[in-house]
Amino acid sequence: MRILTGIQSSGRPHLGNILGAIVPAIKLSQEPGNESFLFIADLHSLTTLKEGETRREYVRAIAATWLAFGYDTQHNTLWRQSRVPEHTELAWYLNCFTPMPMLQNATSFKDKADKLGTSVVNAGLFTYPVLQAADILLYDANLVPVGKDQRQHLEMTRDIASAVNRAYNNGDPARDVFVLPEARIDERIMTIPGIDGAKMSKSYGNYIDIFQPANDLYKVIKKIKSDSTPLEEPKKPDTDITFQLYSLIASDEQTAQMRQNYEAGGYGYGHAKKELYELIMNTYATERERFSFYMENPDELEKELRAGEEKARAVARQTIERVRQAMGFN
Amino acid sequence: MRILTGIQSSGRPHLGNILGAIVPAIKLSQEPGNESFLFIADLHSLTTLKEGETRREYVRAIAATWLAFGYDTQHNTLWRQSRVPEHTELAWYLNCFTPMPMLQNATSFKDKADKLGTSVVNAGLFTYPVLQAADILLYDANLVPVGKDQRQHLEMTRDIASAVNRAYNNGDPARDVFVLPEARIDERIMTIPGIDGAKMSKSYGNYIDIFQPANDLYKVIKKIKSDSTPLEEPKKPDTDITFQLYSLIASDEQTAQMRQNYEAGGYGYGHAKKELYELIMNTYATERERFSFYMENPDELEKELRAGEEKARAVARQTIERVRQAMGFN
Repeated sequence: MRILTGIQSSGRPHLGNILGAIVPAIKLSQEPGNESFLFIADLHSLTTLKEGETRREYVRAIAATWLAFGYDTQHNTLWRQSRVPEHTELAWYLNCFTPMPMLQNATSFKDKADKLGTSVVNAGLFTYPVLQAADILLYDANLVPVGKDQRQHLEMTRDIASAVNRAYNNGDPARDVFVLPEARIDERIMTIPGIDGAKMSKSYGNYIDIFQPANDLYKVIKKIKSDSTPLEEPKKPDTDITFQLYSLIASDEQTAQMRQNYEAGGYGYGHAKKELYELIMNTYATERERFSFYMENPDELEKELRAGEEKARAVARQTIERVRQAMGFN
Repeated sequence: MRILTGIQSSGRPHLGNILGAIVPAIKLSQEPGNESFLFIADLHSLTTLKEGETRREYVRAIAATWLAFGYDTQHNTLWRQSRVPEHTELAWYLNCFTPMPMLQNATSFKDKADKLGTSVVNAGLFTYPVLQAADILLYDANLVPVGKDQRQHLEMTRDIASAVNRAYNNGDPARDVFVLPEARIDERIMTIPGIDGAKMSKSYGNYIDIFQPANDLYKVIKKIKSDSTPLEEPKKPDTDITFQLYSLIASDEQTAQMRQNYEAGGYGYGHAKKELYELIMNTYATERERFSFYMENPDELEKELRAGEEKARAVARQTIERVRQAMGFN
């Protein structure tokens, strides 16, 4: 299966991204017969983020995180969307097969228009799903893991692809221009709590950045919300954020031990937080090192990304040739 | 002055296109200090024309016509829009700086939506003016000759370019990303009459194709509408379509002579049509030959276009680099 994943380049990945998306995606890419195509969606980020230096910084941090967590770029393909011009080229072709009402009725667009006001919304936000369709169809992806909120966008990709197929296959599905991708909706919704208990998110400011200096990391962990149960009394692990985060990272044995500590009493939240901090430092020691290496050696990062871009372009060019042939642009 | 012209690839150019657009544009390109950038807007044509073989045929015929009429590709640049991927790449960037209401209120879009019905209108038609802005800004064009109906689109190009300039020039116009183009509205509206007296247009089916076989050409010219003044009576040249077409092509002496023939009487419309036919055959003998040459030698045509595409891309790449640098995509 060829699995396509786009990563919004809207910030340095935090623990929520890592546990909720990056680690599962890497596992999926390692299953036999799977091949992962992973791109940093920097073109999409321009719809809301205009500032250039911030974008560059985010893109570097995202690539460094995936590499740090062992994304295998030999077997898979990692690239920056903006370096493969076939994305925007295909998006134009697809625009011409996308009925206006499909975009006007897209839930994500209506939400943004409601929030920002129509006069501020730009044409990039409006045609966002078309670029997304191009991202997917360009690589003949079979499978696209999406959250529930992205399900409609994948339906749109399938609709647009079908319209093009119908227009050019002369009634013979064997001559289809595009492969129709399937959505893989992740049912076991893994929501990682932030330090205040709400979903960990950059925009809520409640996230844990595991790549920051040890002292800063410890400071953030100490801020995790807890109740006021006195030190000596037993505590309820299952409703405690520190325990939840700990159990998401720790081994089963470690978690069982921690549960015992909580329930026995005489064990305070301060102790638990210290153990969480140490667990993160130990578990992610290699990842922290590798992340720093890539951030401090941009040439090494660039080398990885360029190699990925060549691999991605080779596939993208084949698809674009097929499209150009069908539409009369060759 | 760098003059940019886009040609809709919606059919083989007819006499109306030649007299109204092609010949004047070539003259303008020959004025000292002027340099013409001329592209065949095949990407735009996908908004309404889906059929591939027709598009290929039209693109060839358009290129062959301009070359037949002596467009100097050494001094100027002629290319197919679809062969320079920077057009669609820039269009995406510009989408993100184009407020929705600007596109929603565009007269040309409202007209199309009214005519076709909103449910049929595609996102390509909607974002058409953004691709057009990219076409212009990509080449740092100073001057864009436009018809009155395109005036609004050029205003939109200037608005989008200004938004990008403001976002990235740090208040210093010397650091502007884009050159603001000026419209050149052709005030002496040269409307070429078709064989029924209405404006010559492919969609009206009243056009004269000067490249068709001599017999077919003569047949079309014989169909030009005229009144029923008998042969022996004097005729009014200024309201007669044959005379109008004749005078647009002939020298002043020839036109004066023809006027005399009309006013003297004893000279029929059949005579006038025969003279118009012969005038076209004589005046455009070389152009007809050159057109046939390019249509029968697609390799020669391809060579010209490829050379143009290389020149165009060299300029486009420089602009895209500037944009990428500003927006953080490098």
